[in-house]
Amino acid sequence: MPASVQTGTGQLPITQSFSAAVAGTRDAALDGTVQRFVTQLSRQTGIPFRPKPGATATLQIHADHGRQAVQKLGEDESYELTVTDSGAKLTASTSLGVLRGLQTFLQLAQIMPTGFAVPAVTIKDQPRFPWRGTLIDVSRHFIPIDVLKRNLDGMAAVKMNVLHWHLSDDQGFRVESKVFPKLTGMGSDEMFYTQEEIRDLITYAHDRGIRVMPEFDIPGHSRSWFLGYPELSSGAGPYTLEGGGIDPIMDPTRESTYKFLEKFIAEMAKLFPDAYFHIGGDEVDGKQWDANPQIQAFIHAHGMKNNQDLQAYFNQRLQKIVAKNHKIMVGWDEILHPDLPKTIIVQSWRGQESLAAAAKQGYSGLLSFGYYLDLMWPAARHYAVDPMSGAAATLAPEEKSRILGGESCQWAEWVTPENIDSHIWPRNAAIAERLWSPLEVQDVASMYTRMNAVSLDLEWLGLTHRSARPRMLHRMAGAADITALRNLADVVEPVKDYNRWDDAKGPIDFHAPLTRMIDAVYPESDTARRFSDLVQAFVQSGFSDRAAETQIRMWLTTWRDNDLRLHSVLDQTFLLREDEPLSQDLSALGAAGLQALDYLDKAQPAPDAWKTQQLAVIEQAKARKADLLLMVAAPVQQLVEGSAGQHN
Amino acid sequence: MPASVQTGTGQLPITQSFSAAVAGTRDAALDGTVQRFVTQLSRQTGIPFRPKPGATATLQIHADHGRQAVQKLGEDESYELTVTDSGAKLTASTSLGVLRGLQTFLQLAQIMPTGFAVPAVTIKDQPRFPWRGTLIDVSRHFIPIDVLKRNLDGMAAVKMNVLHWHLSDDQGFRVESKVFPKLTGMGSDEMFYTQEEIRDLITYAHDRGIRVMPEFDIPGHSRSWFLGYPELSSGAGPYTLEGGGIDPIMDPTRESTYKFLEKFIAEMAKLFPDAYFHIGGDEVDGKQWDANPQIQAFIHAHGMKNNQDLQAYFNQRLQKIVAKNHKIMVGWDEILHPDLPKTIIVQSWRGQESLAAAAKQGYSGLLSFGYYLDLMWPAARHYAVDPMSGAAATLAPEEKSRILGGESCQWAEWVTPENIDSHIWPRNAAIAERLWSPLEVQDVASMYTRMNAVSLDLEWLGLTHRSARPRMLHRMAGAADITALRNLADVVEPVKDYNRWDDAKGPIDFHAPLTRMIDAVYPESDTARRFSDLVQAFVQSGFSDRAAETQIRMWLTTWRDNDLRLHSVLDQTFLLREDEPLSQDLSALGAAGLQALDYLDKAQPAPDAWKTQQLAVIEQAKARKADLLLMVAAPVQQLVEGSAGQHN
Repeated sequence: MPASVQTGTGQLPITQSFSAAVAGTRDAALDGTVQRFVTQLSRQTGIPFRPKPGATATLQIHADHGRQAVQKLGEDESYELTVTDSGAKLTASTSLGVLRGLQTFLQLAQIMPTGFAVPAVTIKDQPRFPWRGTLIDVSRHFIPIDVLKRNLDGMAAVKMNVLHWHLSDDQGFRVESKVFPKLTGMGSDEMFYTQEEIRDLITYAHDRGIRVMPEFDIPGHSRSWFLGYPELSSGAGPYTLEGGGIDPIMDPTRESTYKFLEKFIAEMAKLFPDAYFHIGGDEVDGKQWDANPQIQAFIHAHGMKNNQDLQAYFNQRLQKIVAKNHKIMVGWDEILHPDLPKTIIVQSWRGQESLAAAAKQGYSGLLSFGYYLDLMWPAARHYAVDPMSGAAATLAPEEKSRILGGESCQWAEWVTPENIDSHIWPRNAAIAERLWSPLEVQDVASMYTRMNAVSLDLEWLGLTHRSARPRMLHRMAGAADITALRNLADVVEPVKDYNRWDDAKGPIDFHAPLTRMIDAVYPESDTARRFSDLVQAFVQSGFSDRAAETQIRMWLTTWRDNDLRLHSVLDQTFLLREDEPLSQDLSALGAAGLQALDYLDKAQPAPDAWKTQQLAVIEQAKARKADLLLMVAAPVQQLVEGSAGQHN
Repeated sequence: MPASVQTGTGQLPITQSFSAAVAGTRDAALDGTVQRFVTQLSRQTGIPFRPKPGATATLQIHADHGRQAVQKLGEDESYELTVTDSGAKLTASTSLGVLRGLQTFLQLAQIMPTGFAVPAVTIKDQPRFPWRGTLIDVSRHFIPIDVLKRNLDGMAAVKMNVLHWHLSDDQGFRVESKVFPKLTGMGSDEMFYTQEEIRDLITYAHDRGIRVMPEFDIPGHSRSWFLGYPELSSGAGPYTLEGGGIDPIMDPTRESTYKFLEKFIAEMAKLFPDAYFHIGGDEVDGKQWDANPQIQAFIHAHGMKNNQDLQAYFNQRLQKIVAKNHKIMVGWDEILHPDLPKTIIVQSWRGQESLAAAAKQGYSGLLSFGYYLDLMWPAARHYAVDPMSGAAATLAPEEKSRILGGESCQWAEWVTPENIDSHIWPRNAAIAERLWSPLEVQDVASMYTRMNAVSLDLEWLGLTHRSARPRMLHRMAGAADITALRNLADVVEPVKDYNRWDDAKGPIDFHAPLTRMIDAVYPESDTARRFSDLVQAFVQSGFSDRAAETQIRMWLTTWRDNDLRLHSVLDQTFLLREDEPLSQDLSALGAAGLQALDYLDKAQPAPDAWKTQQLAVIEQAKARKADLLLMVAAPVQQLVEGSAGQHN
């Protein structure tokens, strides 16, 4: 949602004669941008454009200035877009603003009774925050370049401007180092990016107005480094990528560690042109330090009180190395320490309190708490999280200005190249809007309308967030028809937060197939949300809204009858057997809801015994099964309770 | 379906430890083949394979010999595949046979109650015909290399071995010629393949056991040549790719034409290594020859009787040029003439009679009649066409041996890169089976079972024959939910044969968008076929099969209620307005069918007046609308007629 929108009258038709022309500053990059825009508009509309040579362009583009060779934080992204029934004009101070404005134009183009068109409108737009990113973890599961590229296209579509590339972690080191070849040689399972691929991806991102910030997470989360270079670690090893035992940490007490990091960071600082360099710094489990007498001796000898002091010492040394390479250090909450210069940036996975505390001390910060896509929250919940809310709301203006924005995070414990798109999209669009649009833009229903529209547009960029699911359902179902399986998949969601796994199960096997129902379904069920909305409308009407009831009945009937169609399929494949109880529960919910409607229609309260029985069925249906939750249990419960007269 | 299949007991589990090993002849190409096979099996099953180093391979592969550098017609494609519960063995005389056997293995891998597995089996297999091709026309609509590549993957999956690349026609010349740059410079709308892209595609095809035969269609179908080189044409010009007026033909009376072709064919013969070179030769509309006094004078001066004789003269000259470049000439039916040497090959679009006539005269031939994918026939109809049926069935054995196989044809009047896959697949798999499997393999129901299984497997190759439709429906529907639109799309098919267009509409605009419902739907409706099968079962049970009736009711109810859900959507977008009557007809069919079932359930014949009225409704529903046919009208008619007692 742009900062300012003034709707006009009429609309600009998009026909075969559509064309876009660039005036003002012009270079090959901007021409490429416009060419991609035209291709995308052609895909969305299905129109092969054939403008008449010499005709006035439909969309006139003007940028006063070009862009920085390396995109800068805070570089001007503003633009103005005016659309009338006879043409459109996009002006911006920089060609970066043009990039953003073209995405707005694409979002405005829509099908109408008369053809494709863009409604007449005057837009003046700029982002609320200068840092709007997505973190993609490529260590837990390797994500190939082509998958990253299509996700960069998605990020550009929603005007995000930072890819935070989480390149190393316990489970894999993913960047070719020519100085230390054993990093990938022994620590990557042969799944890593060459430096050439990285340069290519950075160019690809730059073309789309996206900075690429690398993260090498140290001193914790660093087991993969130690397969090739065990001398960096605080324990004895040997190490395997599979892990087990206590979490290895880098040894901050040896000078050789810093010599290694000097060379490594010098190499990486050249490879990654962005001004920011993320060193991780989160979740340092001190067990290896506790267990190492030399490290404990070092702590005492240097008058430190504990492991936190040792990490602070490490970070100070690290910060000097990073600064020597002309980079600004970024790290997670835990790096915050008064001995570090105010130039560093703190990224908060802990919350706005942590961010506010940093801002008060003069540190700039980014919010990621509340934007963890891997926690399987609905878009509305992410959308409600604002970097300026909570403790941050009470900051002084100067302190507030230190909050630069935020980043969504796609940690990769449970994603593969096959399903990562549906874990990121479309929910990431809601977070992108939170970071771009004015604070006042808060209406959840209208956010969902925009998010669903963007979701369809993303299809034309090659993202597979919608197309992967049918393939995965077919794999599970074998040759069987998947209609009934889709009905079930449509109303379940994965368990939330970190509930898919617990320590009692032992370490996660990162090489196991991710081909279960939980891996194929969407993190947020559209169907359940719509059904719940219908039930709310029906309840609020005092159970008198007949149109709502008809639709509710349709859904409930489908669900009640679904297990009959699905049962024989579930039985025949090992991947679906665990879903049998879910399917039975869904049918039971359908039956309960229909009976509740029958009581409501007869206008006689349902008997208590029936109600008690149904609530037990619903309670059973709410229980997690196959790591999934049936999201329509709660609205059915409202119907059952309503039919028993509580709401009448 | 292999030539010989002997089922065993048990099954070979496909687990993370799966691996394949090559013994015997081994080269980089075969290693690449096996690597692609493993990747594909991993995609189908979703299992990231991690075999233990040193463990015995699950699948042992042995080829006695390698392959020809340029794949030859009739090169040995046979293989033997033995699968037991403890391992699998694939042996072949050549590595080309290995390619075919690996595809069989992929088709056998399936999900079971215990996991993924391949059933125990012994297969001895070889193709019935040595020439099993698909023609793809890239002139009417340009089809980019990546789209061709995924279709080559599909062809390899069904063991086809020839891509017949229809590279030039009236609407566009698609191959870079360095000798005659104006061919693409003026005749391609800038949509053509560079020679480097062509070499790359040929390598890609060779790696998959597919020959690439180019076709340059002359002397007719050649308008695109004349934009750059009008001196080749029999008329005055000027020419445009859009056309209009009479169809231009090449001038066979000038020596300069042959000088041009000498140079051109020499260049192309080097570019395309295949031994066969297709010169088209079809549908020569003689109007330009009739209108040109010099050409008529030439005909008389050389004692020719008519235009056909002139084309025969042209073909003889052409054949000598082709032969001089060490290629065998191939052309359509019309080139058949006793003056041409017996080495040439005739491709028949006219039928088996034409093929038999050629075989009797000593000419080898290929069947394409009956395999035109653009005619929108159901797979079963293509499947019923055999190169050896009709007139060919009565040939002597030696004559029969001249029938080399056949080719499906995807002419590109009505396809774009977006929807071409769904026009080719999965129906092409039925034609592939006709050409590979023994004549006795004829059962249509079992063909559909295999075709549907292959169709799902093709998804893992990146073909978009199933995934493009939802995107196209979303484009038509705008932001609206597409469930009801999909219900409608599921039961319609495009009009058949050449009925989409007639001359009264003027020439086809090849630059127009192809974004209507007819462009999004499948050529053959699965749902209609299944519904029809259900109704047949119900009728044959004397209307007593309750299970069938329940399912029939479910469908009919969905359709009856569908227009209510869909109407408001259709109204809102210009691309769907034309489908309103279809949607209404579908609802009427649903209602008629349900009423018929009610009469049947009551075991009283439906009244005559009702029947008459319903038959009128059905007749109306059968009429073509928006160039579409409602494929469930006929089975509903059976229900209505049955309920009136005719079948009781």
